[in-house]
Amino acid sequence: MKKFSIKIYPENVELQAEENATLKDVFIENGIKFDFPCGGVGKCKKCKVKILKNNGLEEEVLACQTKVESDLVINLQQREQKHHILNEGVNRQIELKPLVRKIYVELPKPTLEDNRPDWTRLKETLGRADLKTKVNLLQELPEKLRESDFKATIVLTEDEVLAVEPGDTTDRLLGMAFDIGTTTVVGYLLDLNTGKELAHVSALNPQTKYGADVISRITFASQEKDGLEKLHQEIINEINNLVAKATEQAGHTPQDIYAITIAGNTTMHHLFLKIPPENLAKAPYVPVVKEPIRADAGELKININPAGKVFVLSNIAGFVGADTVAAALVAEMDQKEKLTLLIDIGTNGEMVLGTGEKLFACSAAAGPAFEGAQIACGMRGAEGAIDHLTIGEELFYSVIGEVEPLGICGSGLLDIVAELLNIGIIDENGRLLPPEKISDPIGQRYRERIIEINGIRAFVVANGPRGEKIYITQKDIRELQLAKGAIAAGIEILLKEYGADVKDIEEVQLAGAFGNYLKPRSACRTGLIPRELEAKIKGIGNAAGAGAKLALLSEKEFQRAVSLGQKIKYIELSARSDFTAIFAHRLRF
Amino acid sequence: MKKFSIKIYPENVELQAEENATLKDVFIENGIKFDFPCGGVGKCKKCKVKILKNNGLEEEVLACQTKVESDLVINLQQREQKHHILNEGVNRQIELKPLVRKIYVELPKPTLEDNRPDWTRLKETLGRADLKTKVNLLQELPEKLRESDFKATIVLTEDEVLAVEPGDTTDRLLGMAFDIGTTTVVGYLLDLNTGKELAHVSALNPQTKYGADVISRITFASQEKDGLEKLHQEIINEINNLVAKATEQAGHTPQDIYAITIAGNTTMHHLFLKIPPENLAKAPYVPVVKEPIRADAGELKININPAGKVFVLSNIAGFVGADTVAAALVAEMDQKEKLTLLIDIGTNGEMVLGTGEKLFACSAAAGPAFEGAQIACGMRGAEGAIDHLTIGEELFYSVIGEVEPLGICGSGLLDIVAELLNIGIIDENGRLLPPEKISDPIGQRYRERIIEINGIRAFVVANGPRGEKIYITQKDIRELQLAKGAIAAGIEILLKEYGADVKDIEEVQLAGAFGNYLKPRSACRTGLIPRELEAKIKGIGNAAGAGAKLALLSEKEFQRAVSLGQKIKYIELSARSDFTAIFAHRLRF
Repeated sequence: MKKFSIKIYPENVELQAEENATLKDVFIENGIKFDFPCGGVGKCKKCKVKILKNNGLEEEVLACQTKVESDLVINLQQREQKHHILNEGVNRQIELKPLVRKIYVELPKPTLEDNRPDWTRLKETLGRADLKTKVNLLQELPEKLRESDFKATIVLTEDEVLAVEPGDTTDRLLGMAFDIGTTTVVGYLLDLNTGKELAHVSALNPQTKYGADVISRITFASQEKDGLEKLHQEIINEINNLVAKATEQAGHTPQDIYAITIAGNTTMHHLFLKIPPENLAKAPYVPVVKEPIRADAGELKININPAGKVFVLSNIAGFVGADTVAAALVAEMDQKEKLTLLIDIGTNGEMVLGTGEKLFACSAAAGPAFEGAQIACGMRGAEGAIDHLTIGEELFYSVIGEVEPLGICGSGLLDIVAELLNIGIIDENGRLLPPEKISDPIGQRYRERIIEINGIRAFVVANGPRGEKIYITQKDIRELQLAKGAIAAGIEILLKEYGADVKDIEEVQLAGAFGNYLKPRSACRTGLIPRELEAKIKGIGNAAGAGAKLALLSEKEFQRAVSLGQKIKYIELSARSDFTAIFAHRLRF
Repeated sequence: MKKFSIKIYPENVELQAEENATLKDVFIENGIKFDFPCGGVGKCKKCKVKILKNNGLEEEVLACQTKVESDLVINLQQREQKHHILNEGVNRQIELKPLVRKIYVELPKPTLEDNRPDWTRLKETLGRADLKTKVNLLQELPEKLRESDFKATIVLTEDEVLAVEPGDTTDRLLGMAFDIGTTTVVGYLLDLNTGKELAHVSALNPQTKYGADVISRITFASQEKDGLEKLHQEIINEINNLVAKATEQAGHTPQDIYAITIAGNTTMHHLFLKIPPENLAKAPYVPVVKEPIRADAGELKININPAGKVFVLSNIAGFVGADTVAAALVAEMDQKEKLTLLIDIGTNGEMVLGTGEKLFACSAAAGPAFEGAQIACGMRGAEGAIDHLTIGEELFYSVIGEVEPLGICGSGLLDIVAELLNIGIIDENGRLLPPEKISDPIGQRYRERIIEINGIRAFVVANGPRGEKIYITQKDIRELQLAKGAIAAGIEILLKEYGADVKDIEEVQLAGAFGNYLKPRSACRTGLIPRELEAKIKGIGNAAGAGAKLALLSEKEFQRAVSLGQKIKYIELSARSDFTAIFAHRLRF
């Protein structure tokens, strides 16, 4: 038999093909993954490829219908279906190839001459000998195939057939991406055919009633009877509520959801999977698992389609979780040529520093100051919080929701301290000066705002709706110093590990609510972020949620997240002998 | 850094290794699968390899303790651990590497400098980054590891960790192999550390109460309410009974069993997995699945260790099942250089013909004659059955159990017809001659045994305990003709397909009870098997059970079974236009 050479781009492989074989045959024989949605009967027109002609032009043909009659150069155009994704702060072209896909096929009907088993027939029509499935599906397969006369929609992941639906149901395929925060759970309902966001829902993490922060949750899970089971059940129930809410909002049913992705810190990750978090809270802070988890929705009692899948993004370490991996994905830390610093500040500040070549991460215990906790008039970044402030000839502040101020949130606290440093009311050691010690002419204007409350010096920022004073205390300033000192020390140690100087950093990406609301100038004035970097700071929004969405919409992005989880080298700050000295040095303003 | 070359046999690969790397590091880095049971601390002495010295001698060293200081030639001796397996009729050297294995490891304990997650620590200590596991295991992992101070026994299959047991439990590891026959279920309890058979149990297939043969079972499953569920539940319960019985006999518990293998015909296979068998019974006889199934014991409610696995051997077609694949494995059909014919005769005669290069199979509907059903005085091959007979000057017969005869089983029927042909009482057309037509001088001696019963001519073979006559009728002879005609036609069509002549067959392997009890001379005299092959016939015992055992004890044998399932090309006799003519021709004696 005559043979021809087939060159395939972008793979850049060269194959031998027999004369008159179809391109479909050639692809299947050589293990080239390519979808033939209609089974290769020339109906769906989805298997288009481009053949490069001798005249340099490209001709579009169907791979299932085109026979090899000469040497060919082929461009596998099908794979280049790009999709434009817009998220808060992220604007990225991705290949829309979600973690779960649907393919409509028309199988050749069985005859005595072709009595292949149902499952073999299905795999061979798809040209995918590698596909696996569960016994459950095999139990239903003969009926599902015959219900619509061997026309069916196959629901599949990379390597597993999840379900077979009679007829053509390819127009209905949903997924949800979740960011499970310690405080808030956010869910995004996405149409996996278009990448479009259909609903956006959120709720308080119901575990909050057992403890506000990860440490108290870990304690509850480890020490209370059925503690782990309770916390696990709470988050599963809330996820199910959000699934129901989002699908209702969008006019769909949870049955249409075949995939969800989950990003969250390591403690949220463990509790979601009912994995004991006990060892996360004590040295040496060992997680149970960091690899990505692919679980069955049924196994975790998640009320989406019973054949659906749950994809949990990978962690890096006990205090650097899947939320950071998701943020690193959004920030594309794996492709940076220039030295980039990614920071997500919450109770812990998680930092990733590096380039596509090498990446380091650490977690610094910032304490709850930036979340408004343990601050005299602190509050979360909610309605009534002073979130920004400037002090010059006059003192201006803004309040979330434009209502009367009720307290101060993290970004407000940072601004206040930065401004008070600027006008000499706080000195470089963090001391809130007594009125008589203030020498700055502008600072002097605000002397009467310096008062004593329960024997602690304080600066009054504003008056609340009932005339109550809203202020920061000397102790608040110390809390902020501890917080920013820890983060600044973390940055310094990452730089040492990487072998670079702060001036080598070309970009600082801030993830999370606090990171997006803070004023870069204040972050740099207080020394939270090195001064040299002020112009390089950029907010990237709720990167954990955005990363979970990217991973859901694109297998390739999910794989990038997996690789990031493996690639980022974790630095345990508490194991560093140089940490204490650097931290102490960084306490100063 | 200095690099050396490492040549590895029997793989015949050459690697580059850095000076002072251990061989363990080299294997892990290059993805060479090799077990380090104690985690590479030099304790278990299981990682021995042979280094070929310049003087031509081999030196045995521990791969975990040996550093690369020069170019090396290494023989991976660990893999050659062979085991001698003896089964009825089969005597084979196999590599004892069961489908499920245990490895004892001592993990390095976590420190601040090494706070890898538990699961990562486990995989890396085993040198197996490719291992997967279930969320269930992760949920228990931290406790299991810490219970015995990070000394634990890992239970794993080729690519999945099934369980972690605290401490060293490597001495307890059992498996069971099952042959699920339409009539009888046989189970073998094996010690997977030694390959030794610890117990052998069997029971009537409890589905028998819903129908004696596969067709009636399929009808029941398809047409009765909850029919499939009932048949499925019956066989699962019986498997569980046999598990309990076998482990009790051997002084073990079902918890120690981590793997079972299942061989059975395609209908038994489907019912075991609760897969609808409906389409097996009607043209074009389509199974749902032929690929091997790896299921969780829990999923199928099999009461072995809850983390255990069930491996169901692959089928070939609707009437050529996993039992035939298992028999083909025992017969080593994949390695034959000489043309070999494998036959397993029951209600259907399943046949495989070929060499390692190409293999064909078919199934011929023999009907129940050889199982003693629909024969006037027929019975199963049980106590009281006439199983062999010779007629010369005198008539001799043997009875199973050496009791008074109660009836005739398949091998007895075959002998009777063969002998009556020899002495001219039956003619070449299968006619039982009236006494006056018998011309053979020996035949004439038995004239008075030819009688009429209900108007049908019969030959009296013996008298039963209460003086009742035991005989064969003209109708019985016709049944036998249909049965042997179908099988002989199947053999002829396989030969046509292969492109060979009957004289090219160099070996005939007979599997199953009937195959082992029949007298080759009678099989050939009646034309069940072509006359030319008489001297080449060999019984191979309960090959389905033996194959299930081989697959359980050796991953490689399981893989051979998988390959056989793919390689054997199925010929659908009912789709052959030449079948009827060949069958008609083969009815004659």
